[in-house]
Amino acid sequence: MTTMTKFKYSKRVPADGTDAVGAILKAAADPKIISFAGGLPAPELFPVKEMQAAVDKVFEEHGQEAMQYGAAKGVTALRELILQHVKEKEGVTGALDNVLVTTGSEQVLDLVGKAFVNPGDTVLVEQPTYLCALDVFKSYGAKFVGVAMDEQGMKMDALEDALKAHPETKLVYTVPNFQNPTGRTMAVDRRKKLAELAAKYDVYVLEDNPYGEIRFAGTHVPAVKSFDETGHVFYMSTFSKTLAPGFRLGWVVADEDVINKLTVLKQSADLHTDNLAQYAVVEFLDNNDLDAHVKEISDLYGKRKQLMADGLKKYFPAGVKYTNPEGGMFLWVEVPGVDDTVELFKECLKHNVAFVPGDPFFAGKPQPGAFRLNYSNAKEDQIKVGMKQLGEALQEAVNK
Amino acid sequence: MTTMTKFKYSKRVPADGTDAVGAILKAAADPKIISFAGGLPAPELFPVKEMQAAVDKVFEEHGQEAMQYGAAKGVTALRELILQHVKEKEGVTGALDNVLVTTGSEQVLDLVGKAFVNPGDTVLVEQPTYLCALDVFKSYGAKFVGVAMDEQGMKMDALEDALKAHPETKLVYTVPNFQNPTGRTMAVDRRKKLAELAAKYDVYVLEDNPYGEIRFAGTHVPAVKSFDETGHVFYMSTFSKTLAPGFRLGWVVADEDVINKLTVLKQSADLHTDNLAQYAVVEFLDNNDLDAHVKEISDLYGKRKQLMADGLKKYFPAGVKYTNPEGGMFLWVEVPGVDDTVELFKECLKHNVAFVPGDPFFAGKPQPGAFRLNYSNAKEDQIKVGMKQLGEALQEAVNK
Repeated sequence: MTTMTKFKYSKRVPADGTDAVGAILKAAADPKIISFAGGLPAPELFPVKEMQAAVDKVFEEHGQEAMQYGAAKGVTALRELILQHVKEKEGVTGALDNVLVTTGSEQVLDLVGKAFVNPGDTVLVEQPTYLCALDVFKSYGAKFVGVAMDEQGMKMDALEDALKAHPETKLVYTVPNFQNPTGRTMAVDRRKKLAELAAKYDVYVLEDNPYGEIRFAGTHVPAVKSFDETGHVFYMSTFSKTLAPGFRLGWVVADEDVINKLTVLKQSADLHTDNLAQYAVVEFLDNNDLDAHVKEISDLYGKRKQLMADGLKKYFPAGVKYTNPEGGMFLWVEVPGVDDTVELFKECLKHNVAFVPGDPFFAGKPQPGAFRLNYSNAKEDQIKVGMKQLGEALQEAVNK
Repeated sequence: MTTMTKFKYSKRVPADGTDAVGAILKAAADPKIISFAGGLPAPELFPVKEMQAAVDKVFEEHGQEAMQYGAAKGVTALRELILQHVKEKEGVTGALDNVLVTTGSEQVLDLVGKAFVNPGDTVLVEQPTYLCALDVFKSYGAKFVGVAMDEQGMKMDALEDALKAHPETKLVYTVPNFQNPTGRTMAVDRRKKLAELAAKYDVYVLEDNPYGEIRFAGTHVPAVKSFDETGHVFYMSTFSKTLAPGFRLGWVVADEDVINKLTVLKQSADLHTDNLAQYAVVEFLDNNDLDAHVKEISDLYGKRKQLMADGLKKYFPAGVKYTNPEGGMFLWVEVPGVDDTVELFKECLKHNVAFVPGDPFFAGKPQPGAFRLNYSNAKEDQIKVGMKQLGEALQEAVNK
């Protein structure tokens, strides 16, 4: 059913042919390609049996409630567990009215964008940043200003300069732990400073922490939100990296007034989040040791990251720079002397290996020769072989 | 955690105190109140055991896939079943690229609003209409024009007048079967005409059909979409009324180009719909007779509607008008001589019975004395007692 009708879309709909990442992931899906392009957790660690037992118990004990319409803010028992969890892990405190369960953490981006970003408002983002956040905020008419990073995360002097230069700023978006795409973690003094600057300039910080618990080296750094005294920081996370992305369960912790407004918009977006998934996670958390499970994930990803770093050292051309993440799923590579990263991607595809070119992660001018590698979703032997192939492709490209 | 910060929300966020329905449902939640205010299916008919068996099998056979990230358009097997279902039930035909699975049908409203409604665009709606649709489209800056209805649904002469008077119209929203809130069904000749007018005036029809299968009297009327030759009609439905609203599973069938655009926006909204719920419904449909289950629901609702109609006849003041739905969950009452329906609601609360006042269902000026009654979620004895109480309250109000 394709008609000749020319549809009149709203200004929010991106132009055709702008889904560069979709095209890349499609190209990388060829089974002979070893792909470091995706961003998936290792499925072999999903607690399938334990979750099956949890869901079974939900049907036995709350079958009708799990299948009926539910509350927009989420299942109360889950909201209580989330509050306990963020307090224990991140020093983020709040009451029941400070937490909203969402359909994955992607929905938090959508609701916060819808609730705060008027067309033309400025959103400050790390340079580079999570590309889907750019897409969401753009759909609400955001203008972006990129803020420089170094190995310690977003630079606070650069941020303050941007805040002064752009008084129309509404939101600062950050992924402080093992950032997507760079794997970098923001230093604790910068986190304190970020909370201070948000209050001083009366802008909001959206702190997106999907990866924070997946730490395989170094020591934990408390959340930006834990330094927030004025309600300017909104903290968001998800069970997607620690339990199962397929269930689409995320959350946001913020001032009660903000949560109430986001809840009104959530009702318009999807009424409420899947009840069965919420009840199942409550049941799972009551009967399983999430910390032990997350340790298992972190150990595996740490091993895979090390294999990838070994391959980088062994096979990559001299002068290539790369980050050294202490957790999460991604590392970031910068190859000097490359002008066109998408061209480089195509060359690498010929060597049967794939990554995501850095370009779409930049709000402004992209950094040529930079790309993202994922290590969570490739088996150990694939990493060994893939990094060799990638090294060969890069040697060829650099020496051309 | 409530701070003194005054948050600067976007223009899309409704003003405080505008959630009239929330306040009404809260008041009606008192256990001594017999409430006809909600809009929930009868939970005693949820196929809990059968769904438990389906989910068990999903964990056995597709555990990792169900827990992993999934495709934005939905699980292919579910999309195929939906296509087969809409063809069989509604004469709506399409290929795989014409269907998108959504997080409940509420998400279709959100995605279509986002994809089509620029601020200031006109949306034509039945007068009265589903209030959540008004909320969603309003959040994207829609202006509304109400189109008159009679017992045969939206009046096509009134619609054409509105289309001529409002050339900036983008969308016509309709619930053609057992409409929420009136319970009315659009006649077949009007459906044909609606598809014609959409093509003639180059506007889109969003055909929302959550209740169509819950028919307990009369004969089936084919979907507006089945008369669409130009792609101007988008057809949406859900498993919320036939299986389980808690799972949040809806869908939209439309032109491939429209589906692609909605998919891009869905990725920004929540990446994809819960995989476990999708796999579970595929498994359920493979092993159970959905038609037989829907027949059971329809029989029960038919019985409850009859009890409600009996109570109306027996206890309500002379001159009260009400609709006679052949399916769905709601009927609509008009009490002459009432100026303030919310005041009437408060009087009825004192008699321990509740409904939803008609006011929020109107895009423009509300019709005084009109209200919605739900019969799907009240037990038979509650309906008998509640209608007597409601009749007494109305007698008192009318004779005051």
